[in-house]
Amino acid sequence: MNSKFIVIEGLEGAGKTTAREAVVSELQRHGINDIIFTREPGGTPLAEKLRELIKQGVEGERVTDSAELLMLYAARVQLVENVIKPALARGAWVVGDRHDLSSQAYQGGGRGMDAGLMNSLKQAVLGDFAPDLTLYLDVTPQIGLQRARARGELDRIEQESLNFFTRTRERYLALASADSRIKTVDATRPLEQVTAALQQTLTQWLQEQR
Amino acid sequence: MNSKFIVIEGLEGAGKTTAREAVVSELQRHGINDIIFTREPGGTPLAEKLRELIKQGVEGERVTDSAELLMLYAARVQLVENVIKPALARGAWVVGDRHDLSSQAYQGGGRGMDAGLMNSLKQAVLGDFAPDLTLYLDVTPQIGLQRARARGELDRIEQESLNFFTRTRERYLALASADSRIKTVDATRPLEQVTAALQQTLTQWLQEQR
Ligand SMILES: Nc1ncnc2c1ncn2[C@@H]1O[C@H](COP(=O)(O)OP(=O)(O)OP(=O)(O)O)[C@@H](O)[C@H]1O
Ligand SMILES: Nc1ncnc2c1ncn2[C@@H]1O[C@H](COP(=O)(O)OP(=O)(O)OP(=O)(O)O)[C@@H](O)[C@H]1O
Ligand SMILES: [Mg+2]
Ligand SMILES: [Mg+2]
Repeated sequence: MNSKFIVIEGLEGAGKTTAREAVVSELQRHGINDIIFTREPGGTPLAEKLRELIKQGVEGERVTDSAELLMLYAARVQLVENVIKPALARGAWVVGDRHDLSSQAYQGGGRGMDAGLMNSLKQAVLGDFAPDLTLYLDVTPQIGLQRARARGELDRIEQESLNFFTRTRERYLALASADSRIKTVDATRPLEQVTAALQQTLTQWLQEQR
Repeated sequence: MNSKFIVIEGLEGAGKTTAREAVVSELQRHGINDIIFTREPGGTPLAEKLRELIKQGVEGERVTDSAELLMLYAARVQLVENVIKPALARGAWVVGDRHDLSSQAYQGGGRGMDAGLMNSLKQAVLGDFAPDLTLYLDVTPQIGLQRARARGELDRIEQESLNFFTRTRERYLALASADSRIKTVDATRPLEQVTAALQQTLTQWLQEQR
């Protein structure tokens, strides 16, 4: 099987970072051992600097929605060109904590950014490049934020309103239902059940790829 | 007269920063005293951080053309929304050291970035917002780089090839000849002559605005 790009998506506190382990152990059970991890925004020196600016903002200055979107895509193009594509080319699998679907959901849905701009950015930066599989961990904003809050301080984006996250989740669900390469997993359940569902989804998908 | 946005443009070493003084003293001679200065990329705390990333890059990582363009527009939208528009709204004049024309010339001409993306970025970030007057200081790359080099170390962009700056200058000239709000000044001449030409151009333009 060719190497693949698998992305884990979902709201803050959905359990994306936690899910990584389940995904990796499932891949290893299928004999896949050359795996790299990425997270977005970030994952290269320049992209990590942009991540900091996006997540923390700058003292005393409003970050406009447009600047946020542009910095996210600047970070993404660095990660895709300098890390993800080279890894796939040498045969490694890539497991991503967030990717373009986050921008579609947060900036497109949550912030209501213009669809024309979103599409030209995506086209210019990614062209036809897309994950082979996206595992979307679906939680209500209430549950996600509760988990994130229990973990520590909230950053600039995590401090958004419940309405913002509700719009974001709705966009996630709409996009997932329109694309067979996105699998939705109910992540409101206890961790063992989420892990079992992820592993089952992944096993079935891997079998379909043979 | 309503307050105006005047931009000084040109290659590295064309004399933009030097020209600022001539522009300001000419405005003052016409009774205009509430003037702010901007430079691009930069001019807000977030935009200055982006300027640093754009001009210096990051150790050991190639900055892609797309990321460069996106960071430039992220910085621009912060400056326009948080500084330039509020200044004009309260009646101040704004004198800018570079603005969107630099991206058209450097990224569009020099780097050959896709015109479709350039146009949607410009439209999304600026809409109909544009300088009232642009003073384009035209020099050959040879003369500009010689002046810039005499001044000190060259940054990431100043280290580009002569071909890159030749394409950039050609785009500047083409855009200037197609837009009556851009005035071209021959900046290869000695400083006193450039200053005199700038002041004459500005005086005539101010008269036309009455
Ligand atoms: N199914 C679950 N049930 C209860 N708690 C969970 C579940 N999944 C994860 N958690 C806990 O919720 C918190 C957030 O999980 P995690 O950090 O994996 O989320 P995340 O989606 O990566 O969040 P972020 O977007 O902020 O990075 C962690 O403390 C984690 O242990
Ligand atoms: N007409 C001129 N003749 C000779 N030297 C000049 C002239 N104009 C400016 N200079 C000198 O050239 C150098 C570059 O000028 P300046 O810094 O104003 O250029 P700039 O366009 O702002 O460059 P940069 O794009 O790098 O900021 C300075 O040392 C300046 O004194
Ligand atoms: Mg996480
Ligand atoms: Mg200068």
